[in-house]
Amino acid sequence: VSDSSFLDRISIVLVDTLQPGNIGSAARAMSNMGLSRLKLVNPRGVFSTECLKMAGNAADLVSSAEVFATLGEAVAAENIVIGTTSSRDRLQKGRTQTPREMAKLVREYAATQRVALVFGSEKRGLSDQQLAYCQYRVTIPAHPAYPVLNLAQAVMVLAYEVYNSVESDLNQAFELASQEDRDQMFEHLERMLLRIGFLSSSNPDHITNAIRRFLGRADLTTRDLQILRGIFSQMEWFADHGHTLPPDKVRKP
Amino acid sequence: VSDSSFLDRISIVLVDTLQPGNIGSAARAMSNMGLSRLKLVNPRGVFSTECLKMAGNAADLVSSAEVFATLGEAVAAENIVIGTTSSRDRLQKGRTQTPREMAKLVREYAATQRVALVFGSEKRGLSDQQLAYCQYRVTIPAHPAYPVLNLAQAVMVLAYEVYNSVESDLNQAFELASQEDRDQMFEHLERMLLRIGFLSSSNPDHITNAIRRFLGRADLTTRDLQILRGIFSQMEWFADHGHTLPPDKVRKP
Repeated sequence: VSDSSFLDRISIVLVDTLQPGNIGSAARAMSNMGLSRLKLVNPRGVFSTECLKMAGNAADLVSSAEVFATLGEAVAAENIVIGTTSSRDRLQKGRTQTPREMAKLVREYAATQRVALVFGSEKRGLSDQQLAYCQYRVTIPAHPAYPVLNLAQAVMVLAYEVYNSVESDLNQAFELASQEDRDQMFEHLERMLLRIGFLSSSNPDHITNAIRRFLGRADLTTRDLQILRGIFSQMEWFADHGHTLPPDKVRKP
Repeated sequence: VSDSSFLDRISIVLVDTLQPGNIGSAARAMSNMGLSRLKLVNPRGVFSTECLKMAGNAADLVSSAEVFATLGEAVAAENIVIGTTSSRDRLQKGRTQTPREMAKLVREYAATQRVALVFGSEKRGLSDQQLAYCQYRVTIPAHPAYPVLNLAQAVMVLAYEVYNSVESDLNQAFELASQEDRDQMFEHLERMLLRIGFLSSSNPDHITNAIRRFLGRADLTTRDLQILRGIFSQMEWFADHGHTLPPDKVRKP
């Protein structure tokens, strides 16, 4: 991954971790996925044999971890703080991001800002007080029969999603579009669909919501938006100037 | 997850596993992601304290695991066998699926057939002889500096992708579109773009390939295709019948 600065702006913050082996496993997962900034809040037995054994080749990452007494101190220098909650607790804690949505957020923010992903203790997760530090919450979907992931496994899933979203970016020649650009594209789409009579002005939401859903899954780049808006403009122009023009008089995008 | 029969057709096969803790961790990851069929080939110390400790509430899954002497026996009753390889070995072992591609394959196959995901030993992964049993290979993208995932972490990533693909299906009221339906939609799109003069007939590939790429990432459902083709038809109709009609005379989709 050439854009290492992106990954370097992401930190993993483990709070009140009880089992040193989990810290080691989490460090290995981070290293596997190109992350290197580990912060530990009030950890137990961080440099134990079990921890270093589980870290594998990522022992350096453990020894370079920063240790803090409180979550507040750990995230003081972070711009964006994202807390993890179990799917068991989803209802009582309000709206959360999926790991994939979280990865998109992180990718956008970490281009310029420092982002922290915060994980609570094995037994209790993050407290409400700790979640108050988090602008966003992410929940890993899990089976209702046993929805509680091992701490290091949860770190792996989120790190995997973040790294994987970077990989997809690198496979594309263009930047992902911003939320603002996407919103403008959807507004343009809606205008055009009203113009050609595909939607009625009384209730366009049903169809446009469906389109928003599948285009939302498409990871649109700025170039994709140019193409879509070019089609919409052409359609509007065609609607205004009509079908009587020969094809070679039709405006080129 | 209501479609439990889907997940029940998927087995995880761990081959020559050296560390009992990894079997327990893998079992917990499976259980978190709704999988229950564990097969062990030539394992060491499967019922150790370490194994059961790491399994957490998934100890039942370990005790109900089937044990085999060889991979051939373990997959004899499976229809589709997918082997995992490290990204370290990707070049020498030919084309592999990404975890997300693998999840789509599994989702399609496991609707009617039994699917096995096979993981090699911690030290050496799957041998060429063992990979010969696998119709497909999957590789988890990882950072080149440390691309070797812990065995149970690898199980978690693949199980997460499989479970997550089921979840997205269940969140959608409609089936994923088939390749044939998608192809017909793209042909329709191209006709329409030619009709409205957005493409020239000499070289439409540049734009349509870009559109194919981002719509290909969108996991289009049959309902999404209906909406898209409805828009295309309306554009064609509008292009033929023109801008002079009052809006209430415009054909409704």
